[in-house]
Amino acid sequence: MALSEQDMRFFRAALALGRRNLGATAPNPAVGALVVRDGVVVGRGWTAPGGRPHAETQALAQAGDLARGATLYVTLEPCAHHGKTPPCAEAVAAAGIARVVGGPTDPDDRVAGEGYGLLRRAGLEVEADVLPEEGRRAHRGHILRATEGRPMVTLKIAETADGQAAGGPHDRRLAITGAAANLRTHVLRALHDAIMVGVGTALGDDPLMTVRLPGCNRKPLRVVLDARLDLPLRSRLVVGARDFPTLVFCGAEAAPARRVALEDHGVEIATCTLTDGRIDLGAALRQLGARGITRVFSEGGPRVGAALIAQALADEMILFTAPKPLGREGVESLSPQARETLADPGVYRIMEQGLLGADRFIHYERN
Amino acid sequence: MALSEQDMRFFRAALALGRRNLGATAPNPAVGALVVRDGVVVGRGWTAPGGRPHAETQALAQAGDLARGATLYVTLEPCAHHGKTPPCAEAVAAAGIARVVGGPTDPDDRVAGEGYGLLRRAGLEVEADVLPEEGRRAHRGHILRATEGRPMVTLKIAETADGQAAGGPHDRRLAITGAAANLRTHVLRALHDAIMVGVGTALGDDPLMTVRLPGCNRKPLRVVLDARLDLPLRSRLVVGARDFPTLVFCGAEAAPARRVALEDHGVEIATCTLTDGRIDLGAALRQLGARGITRVFSEGGPRVGAALIAQALADEMILFTAPKPLGREGVESLSPQARETLADPGVYRIMEQGLLGADRFIHYERN
Repeated sequence: MALSEQDMRFFRAALALGRRNLGATAPNPAVGALVVRDGVVVGRGWTAPGGRPHAETQALAQAGDLARGATLYVTLEPCAHHGKTPPCAEAVAAAGIARVVGGPTDPDDRVAGEGYGLLRRAGLEVEADVLPEEGRRAHRGHILRATEGRPMVTLKIAETADGQAAGGPHDRRLAITGAAANLRTHVLRALHDAIMVGVGTALGDDPLMTVRLPGCNRKPLRVVLDARLDLPLRSRLVVGARDFPTLVFCGAEAAPARRVALEDHGVEIATCTLTDGRIDLGAALRQLGARGITRVFSEGGPRVGAALIAQALADEMILFTAPKPLGREGVESLSPQARETLADPGVYRIMEQGLLGADRFIHYERN
Repeated sequence: MALSEQDMRFFRAALALGRRNLGATAPNPAVGALVVRDGVVVGRGWTAPGGRPHAETQALAQAGDLARGATLYVTLEPCAHHGKTPPCAEAVAAAGIARVVGGPTDPDDRVAGEGYGLLRRAGLEVEADVLPEEGRRAHRGHILRATEGRPMVTLKIAETADGQAAGGPHDRRLAITGAAANLRTHVLRALHDAIMVGVGTALGDDPLMTVRLPGCNRKPLRVVLDARLDLPLRSRLVVGARDFPTLVFCGAEAAPARRVALEDHGVEIATCTLTDGRIDLGAALRQLGARGITRVFSEGGPRVGAALIAQALADEMILFTAPKPLGREGVESLSPQARETLADPGVYRIMEQGLLGADRFIHYERN
């Protein structure tokens, strides 16, 4: 049976369900699932915070006996391995599901086609990799972690109309964007497992790097790239480290006394490879991937941004441009090479753009 | 001692703290408090979800002995009555606070100046009603409930470029606004104790009326104005009533069998006065005030909106206008009289306006 308009509608609804806990399911992917019988939704599920229970488990439980003969819409290949829970693919077959309309094959080498394979061998009709572009976008962080050992990175840059990120090396405290862009920023933070900045931004802006949305309880890991451990103990990142998990990457040569002082304040320290005296971004991201992080939101500064773009590590990027120029010499938000790469349609394409209050935004996606 | 620039800065910081739980503290006001000693913040507090502990209690606890001789910045007069907790004004004096820079006098007749009076009699220096406009705006819901027995109402209207709210009486399902405006709408929902619609909107749009923000756990009361209990049992509001508190106002003549059926699904029913066969808005709001609701977000339809404006019950209003016209006959988003009232600077003034994605928004405040 081919895919119908109705299949597409239900699959898109499963994608929307899956987004509900995006940013809260690491190390697991944020999956959505719908059980549909005779055109009626009889079960809905999405990965729970922390990654368990899985979406399929919950949708099947809700459907109960109505799952027999029904169609399951699921945004990623059901798992096939016995981990902390029995494999979803077995549960799907055991529940009597007749047909599965599913997203991308899960590149996790404990699944890797075995989920769909198990379902087909059990006699279910399987349509895999439906809406491949949307499916891969929904699970980009999980897929990159499985295939490249690193999380996906969303890069945010805010700049004045004349392309400045800050007033100068000792004058960085600029509230560049307005309320609507800041709201979007907080939502983006909530949708990522970690928020990352370079130590320059940490020193210049003394940012909180928390999600400030009404009623929101998400606490993404706060990551600072700080080769020499320059982060002062009185900075808000350190003061709040017992309430908001905070990880600082430093070089092996960083002063042991500073390391101990930061750890005493609840900051976690991890040693990382340096390149030209700075934290190696690829190495830091692989370390984050190894600890289960699937989605990183990078908020500065310009040097980190340019390096992420140059090293093909900025998978998505959101650029906010305020209407007013700085009007004097400052710190450029993007290097000329980074701007060139962003403007190259062979490398990046624009997913969405528009105004948020007075600020223009462009959301890019790497091809 | 007169108020300094620094006083204003700390008082504004207290207002920002108070907003953190706005929409989650009913029946209590969402207050913010800062304890400052020698220019350094030594305690911060904001009303907890559910209304207790109060902001002052938490800020004083954090300050500990450092409160002695310090200044307390608090966005509303501290309470003076023995309720479920001892009065904050007594605790402030007992902690050794030397000076209080505070917001509006609390019109609650158990406070009504007695909080500031107690502090003055205890020898503290008191600067009351600082930044009166911001202070009253921050506590508008609480103040209206204390003075008029009703919550504040924020009215939201979304319309096409040609001023239509819907395609027609039997064709209301229009996604008028884009992602950025919808995000703002979800944040506004989260900042209110209740969300209200007329039954026409409930029938036409089958809305969820939930807060869908990542990681957000707020569940404002969902209120439907439904004189004859026309709300179908299969509507999403009824189906979800066990998970999301739902209250339907109906007339005394509504069919008892329908009432029982809705109650069986977890919907709460309250009888309300009718005017011309419709729920009397003033009476419904007073009932909501009596049950502790301080902030209501009204999301439709056009008739409810026009009535709120005409009866001087729409304290704030946000109007979203999409760039595209409907281009055919539909349902007007606002009556000509309502538009006239909104445009009258003697009645409403514009607090903020701009673009959210492609949609224009205007945020009005009643004078």
